[in-house]
Amino acid sequence: MGDFRVLEVKQSVFADNDRRAAQLRQSLRERKLFLLNLMSSPGAGKTTTLTRTIELLRDELRIGVMEADIDSDVDAERISKTGARAIQLHTGGMCHLDADMTAQGLEGLETGELDLAILENVGNLVCPAEFDTGASKNAMILSVPEGDDKPLKYPLMFSLCDVVLINKIDVLPYFDFDMEKCRKNILMRNPNAKIIPICARTGEGVDEWAEWLREQVKKWRE
Amino acid sequence: MGDFRVLEVKQSVFADNDRRAAQLRQSLRERKLFLLNLMSSPGAGKTTTLTRTIELLRDELRIGVMEADIDSDVDAERISKTGARAIQLHTGGMCHLDADMTAQGLEGLETGELDLAILENVGNLVCPAEFDTGASKNAMILSVPEGDDKPLKYPLMFSLCDVVLINKIDVLPYFDFDMEKCRKNILMRNPNAKIIPICARTGEGVDEWAEWLREQVKKWRE
Repeated sequence: MGDFRVLEVKQSVFADNDRRAAQLRQSLRERKLFLLNLMSSPGAGKTTTLTRTIELLRDELRIGVMEADIDSDVDAERISKTGARAIQLHTGGMCHLDADMTAQGLEGLETGELDLAILENVGNLVCPAEFDTGASKNAMILSVPEGDDKPLKYPLMFSLCDVVLINKIDVLPYFDFDMEKCRKNILMRNPNAKIIPICARTGEGVDEWAEWLREQVKKWRE
Repeated sequence: MGDFRVLEVKQSVFADNDRRAAQLRQSLRERKLFLLNLMSSPGAGKTTTLTRTIELLRDELRIGVMEADIDSDVDAERISKTGARAIQLHTGGMCHLDADMTAQGLEGLETGELDLAILENVGNLVCPAEFDTGASKNAMILSVPEGDDKPLKYPLMFSLCDVVLINKIDVLPYFDFDMEKCRKNILMRNPNAKIIPICARTGEGVDEWAEWLREQVKKWRE
């Protein structure tokens, strides 16, 4: 079993989340710490994608991961086995993290010596999109079995993500999923979105995603 | 294109959702109208399951469907093609429906001549579980690609559903999904849950689900 702490994060006392998020982002830039906020539906493959990503980047970047979940610890245990620093955040039933809860998590993660912190948000396409966590960049995973129409149904989530990973492309033959239609739906919501098809299980496409992330961290720390 | 209305439901003015939900449930019993609340993650197959269910039950029950979504109308259009009465509820960004929004939807659906009303809730495993809609019974769909560990991560949702449909069993060979482990995880959260594996795309198992639903409607209207 890996080594990780569990932290019960409390609902923010800050009424103005946007202000708090801007403060956190500014402080991260001063500390040269890049924070990625990773979102998706339940079961889209966030944790598997993160373990692959850590394998590709751990020799060049010092990485810490915050695993937000309502109750369980299974994700932090999986991440801690990669050797990355991991902490489990329990949201106490909350469906998202806000900027203050994220700041509590970063404090618990003890980020002083890290280059890259990753927040695995609660599995949910609605509420996490409504609360700026203060992250440097937002990423989301859409998995093939969920369908190519999801950008039509969850507009806010797709509109604010800098990058959309389309995961589980190994099962494309078994689902009625049109990759071109999906691209169009995403770009309709967000013309600037970077779209990367991947298969986290086999590792296909994950190098392109890791390269994108490497570039973002570099720019942030300049 | 099918025929359906779009209704913008407003956030409830009732502070006490539980009280409002109990009132609605009592009124449904008096009107002999059964209301099913169907929940799942995004893309688990709610609408496909409903079209199959309507095909099996439409000759014996008068059915109406409320399709809750943040923005799009694609689901109500699919349902209206089955011949069932359909209405699209727009939640205006809200991640769930509460009892008052459900009551607004039922009014818009004009349920006077219906036996069975179905609410397709917003795709989300967190928030819809926290708000009693006033439904006669709660059902959820867990799809195979989401993974057998979901009952560990979304405890409240699994604990309050009377029935759990495990959908997309046709793709079991391509996913690391253990049906027995999944059953154990569900029953740990809810020992009384009825569990029915189905494939909504091919129709496999849907007759068992339709039979369960038929029985519940009959008991409710006695």
